[in-house]
Amino acid sequence: MAAVRGPAVLLYLLLFSDYFSNSCATNSDIERDAKAQYTHRIDSLNLLLYTFLLISTVLTIWMFKHRRLRFLHETGLAVIYGLIVGALIRYGGSTTTVSHLNVIPDKGTRYNDSLPPDTVWLRYPYKMSNISAQQPNKMYAYTFRGEIKDVENNEIDLKATFDPEIFFNIILPPIIFHAGYSLKKKYFFRNLGAILMFALIGTTISSFTVGALMYGMVQVIPHLKTSFNFLDSLYFGALISSTDPLTILAIFNDLHVDVNLYALVFGESVLNDAVAIVLSGAIRNYAERYQSGSGSFETDAFFRALGDFIFIFTLSLGIGAVMGCLTAILTKFTRVRDFPLLESALFVLMSYSTFLIAEVADLTGVVAVLFCGICQAHYTYNNLSSDSRTRTKQLFELMNFLAENFIFSYIGVSMFTFPKHHFDPGFIIAGFICAAVGRAANIYPLSFLLNLGRKPKISPNFQHMLFFAGLRGAMSFALAIRNTVSEARQAMLTTTSLIVIFTVIVQGGSTMQLLTWLNIPVGVDDEVELLPYSNSRGEINETASVSGSNSASLTGGKDGGKALLARWWAGLDTKYMKPFLTHSRPTLLETLPVCCNPLARLLTTTEQLTQECGRSRVDSDSELCLEENEMSFTDHRRSSSSQRAVVSITTQPKNQLFQT
Amino acid sequence: MAAVRGPAVLLYLLLFSDYFSNSCATNSDIERDAKAQYTHRIDSLNLLLYTFLLISTVLTIWMFKHRRLRFLHETGLAVIYGLIVGALIRYGGSTTTVSHLNVIPDKGTRYNDSLPPDTVWLRYPYKMSNISAQQPNKMYAYTFRGEIKDVENNEIDLKATFDPEIFFNIILPPIIFHAGYSLKKKYFFRNLGAILMFALIGTTISSFTVGALMYGMVQVIPHLKTSFNFLDSLYFGALISSTDPLTILAIFNDLHVDVNLYALVFGESVLNDAVAIVLSGAIRNYAERYQSGSGSFETDAFFRALGDFIFIFTLSLGIGAVMGCLTAILTKFTRVRDFPLLESALFVLMSYSTFLIAEVADLTGVVAVLFCGICQAHYTYNNLSSDSRTRTKQLFELMNFLAENFIFSYIGVSMFTFPKHHFDPGFIIAGFICAAVGRAANIYPLSFLLNLGRKPKISPNFQHMLFFAGLRGAMSFALAIRNTVSEARQAMLTTTSLIVIFTVIVQGGSTMQLLTWLNIPVGVDDEVELLPYSNSRGEINETASVSGSNSASLTGGKDGGKALLARWWAGLDTKYMKPFLTHSRPTLLETLPVCCNPLARLLTTTEQLTQECGRSRVDSDSELCLEENEMSFTDHRRSSSSQRAVVSITTQPKNQLFQT
Repeated sequence: MAAVRGPAVLLYLLLFSDYFSNSCATNSDIERDAKAQYTHRIDSLNLLLYTFLLISTVLTIWMFKHRRLRFLHETGLAVIYGLIVGALIRYGGSTTTVSHLNVIPDKGTRYNDSLPPDTVWLRYPYKMSNISAQQPNKMYAYTFRGEIKDVENNEIDLKATFDPEIFFNIILPPIIFHAGYSLKKKYFFRNLGAILMFALIGTTISSFTVGALMYGMVQVIPHLKTSFNFLDSLYFGALISSTDPLTILAIFNDLHVDVNLYALVFGESVLNDAVAIVLSGAIRNYAERYQSGSGSFETDAFFRALGDFIFIFTLSLGIGAVMGCLTAILTKFTRVRDFPLLESALFVLMSYSTFLIAEVADLTGVVAVLFCGICQAHYTYNNLSSDSRTRTKQLFELMNFLAENFIFSYIGVSMFTFPKHHFDPGFIIAGFICAAVGRAANIYPLSFLLNLGRKPKISPNFQHMLFFAGLRGAMSFALAIRNTVSEARQAMLTTTSLIVIFTVIVQGGSTMQLLTWLNIPVGVDDEVELLPYSNSRGEINETASVSGSNSASLTGGKDGGKALLARWWAGLDTKYMKPFLTHSRPTLLETLPVCCNPLARLLTTTEQLTQECGRSRVDSDSELCLEENEMSFTDHRRSSSSQRAVVSITTQPKNQLFQT
Repeated sequence: MAAVRGPAVLLYLLLFSDYFSNSCATNSDIERDAKAQYTHRIDSLNLLLYTFLLISTVLTIWMFKHRRLRFLHETGLAVIYGLIVGALIRYGGSTTTVSHLNVIPDKGTRYNDSLPPDTVWLRYPYKMSNISAQQPNKMYAYTFRGEIKDVENNEIDLKATFDPEIFFNIILPPIIFHAGYSLKKKYFFRNLGAILMFALIGTTISSFTVGALMYGMVQVIPHLKTSFNFLDSLYFGALISSTDPLTILAIFNDLHVDVNLYALVFGESVLNDAVAIVLSGAIRNYAERYQSGSGSFETDAFFRALGDFIFIFTLSLGIGAVMGCLTAILTKFTRVRDFPLLESALFVLMSYSTFLIAEVADLTGVVAVLFCGICQAHYTYNNLSSDSRTRTKQLFELMNFLAENFIFSYIGVSMFTFPKHHFDPGFIIAGFICAAVGRAANIYPLSFLLNLGRKPKISPNFQHMLFFAGLRGAMSFALAIRNTVSEARQAMLTTTSLIVIFTVIVQGGSTMQLLTWLNIPVGVDDEVELLPYSNSRGEINETASVSGSNSASLTGGKDGGKALLARWWAGLDTKYMKPFLTHSRPTLLETLPVCCNPLARLLTTTEQLTQECGRSRVDSDSELCLEENEMSFTDHRRSSSSQRAVVSITTQPKNQLFQT
């Protein structure tokens, strides 16, 4: 938060100048206490600034919604307010920098050869004129923050003043968990093939395309040529390949755009965040391990980095899934649901511990939390009491809202106040071009490939919409601000910030227009009337609907192998996972072979047995939709339409909407 | 969190020893990156430890509740689990201390004469054997943490490793806000006189009694005599005078003990937290300003400290109230309630900004947040949509639950792992005696005084219960751990921790027994049958019920002056505040003089006008009870009984229950 200290100091002096004059009258002890209090107040003031920014955003966006203005999403507004406040701070207030002192170890002290100490104790000497018996040297404690790699630069290094890791440890986890927890699984699984294709393969293609293109373009700019190596551009490619189509999804929601398009955009953006963070981590590790100094490219090391990527991704996914299932087991086999507060607390604690376990194991907590969220929604949600369902949904919705808007305000404010921006017009233009080309290289070729095997083809207009939905957001910014030691990295941060601001405001603002131009049907509620006979088959039981939806998604898969895998998973899920982890029918007594009956009996609750088959226990997904109905304005109308859409689409696996 | 680094390091080495061996094979760059990652992982591991502690607590307490075992509250269990884990860490793992290095300013560097720098940059030299062209000196950044006052002590100073301010800035605010927000206002106002008496005057009496007694007792202990001055004992008196009767209130809830006794215990404990924190702050300031070195007592300075106390308390209260009313205005005059998510976000942000504003203004954020909570419940709650009501109640309930149990686990763990404990049997015994005497000096004389003017007298058995309800908790511990520089302060922390643990487990555990011994009636549901005629007058309108309850509270006031003030406030609240800040009737058009009609029209919403008078808009308090009904296990049965009790008591202002 140190980036906004300038005005804070000013305000502080205005408000508390009498405090200072008071303290000067007394002895020097107070000044030092005032110092600690001062730091605390400055931090509070900075937080207060962001709190007021968020309050203004909330009130303004309410007015926009009230007047049905849809051209600006709350995140866009947060960015704009952030920019205004940032500019005011930059040009209105005096900028005070954080004071620093160069120190060396005291003579005769033993120290470790390779590792820096956790804390340093500074013996703070007074100048000659002040030395007296009453004022001995004071000791001050300082804690380790990081290495300063850019000693020559006169500016204060960011690492010493503000820790960008706060984004990865506090801001991103609730956003990503919420994305997983609120995933509409039915549509997600229906389009699983396409989503995985875009997210896994597409993001990698995009990263390398952007990386290569960027590297080529930078060679033309003489002053960047030397400082910008290939790994830097790859890192840029990875971070700019994660998308964050909040604005567009909000409009899709309002206008009831086709649920499958919604699922494609949402599913891809959720998963490509995970891919981007792990990919950029692998590139960073690769750079640190094998490329320090030399610019050569080693094939062996490259494959080790690839192995790293797969290893970290899989293990993070595994931890998330295991912890999600563990929560499901805990909520199924205890009757903790009798005490909703305990149940909610358990849910939150288990989800948070997932993040911590992954971080402790040196994996990616954000990815673990994403898959934990998906499992919590898929299994645990079924076991929760209705009170806990509402509470957890509302809690994470609120946390997501606050975290998202905070990060976007911060993007706005930091454009002006962050000391490590480097505005390089050439690099910025190159960045914009590469980001667009990278997105195109993801969507169009893969859509072509998918359409070869996919029955409901992705029409060209839908492809344009997918391309257009590649807004950049929180994840890109967090990855860019994580490391700003070199000029290249600073230029990357500036470019990323500008791309985020541009896409959120301009692309977000023109979505309505584009939907009209591309003739994408809105108001899918009408679909029910188009397919009136579907209601008669609304009473299909869960098993049928799940396997039905899964096999529908298989038609979207490109090759038979993947289809087989997905079908195998759908069978496993319906036959073993759901009966084991939730209260749903069929029970394990029905699905396991007879020899396992004692075990099956143990794992089946009375509640599960006394339940009627079929409608009594509807699918978790449709329940999720029902819950959302009562909960928030974003899902206010969508849920009812999607509910109806569930019915109609399940009976018509070949979704007509893709052939508009 | 550094206090539990010992086992963390052990676990780390077990899990990641191969990581270390890998890193040794490569160059020294990685070791330093590993250092930063290592710190992050240790922090995660420590948080994980507490998360698992909380998960265990939740699961065990569920079992206890499931089997209807009431002798242990979740906070008691959290303490016990904390103690067990703390002991395991202490005696099971190897204790690794945080490494530190003494440093001095580099030659030729200019530095400020009086204030320490915000950051220090350490030029980290390598030993002779390692010096080479590839390994230049590295710079590391360290940030300011505080002054080390105890340089001679070989142990690592707490301030350098763990910031107890985390309790005041993260843990306490949600607990205190929740207390204010969930206050049952009707019973609170009915007993306002007694509550204010106990909380304001009683806490002060208790503080000074404990302070004086403690000072006297310590004079007998030779080795403490020198280090323990009168202000230290006063500080101890202030911190030990705040009560935290969580356990007892939970049992009161379960057993439906008389609502007025509940209100007395709850109201007093809420307010005495605020008094204790401001009082201890005033004592601290007094000590810093006027007593450094000399042990003399200045009357002038004492009254300035008293002025400080009143000033800070009043201003904090004012900020809280103003922000609460501002939220009410925002929610009344905008239609933000159409978008519950925005509304909830606004509510949370406004409440949080109250804390920050108070902190920035050098007041007490915790006190501001308490009165903000009370105003939010009294006014804003009426304007919220039903969705936001549930959401905010549930959110703060959950945050309160997690924060409370975290602090109690921490008290348990820190008994063994915190390096600054000082076990002095004499001091501990003295502390226990003084705490009990101080509580008695609060309750019994004031009850006697109150009974002189109070119509429903506080019976001796109720007085014993009030005395017994003086458990110590989060606030006492947080105040004690805030400062542990001297031996006296360390002995205070140890004694406070032990008193908290003892009262929570032993007093909390024997509440049921005591209720029986004291013949305090339980199951107040039955009251309705005792007073069957009350139902016929259940349709009284809000105005009558509010003024009724308020005038009932006046009878509890000791002198006419205070009664006049309370009556004046009740009138103001019903006539102007509620019509202005909420949607309730009567409107300002009815209560303001005719000349103000244009203004009144402006401040009255259409919604307010179209509302029927009377039952249509029930009092916020009873609505609060209604909400609680659906929400949590703690208020599960109480709400229905209190609802009925509202009716019966309103019609019978002279509550019979006080004469048992």
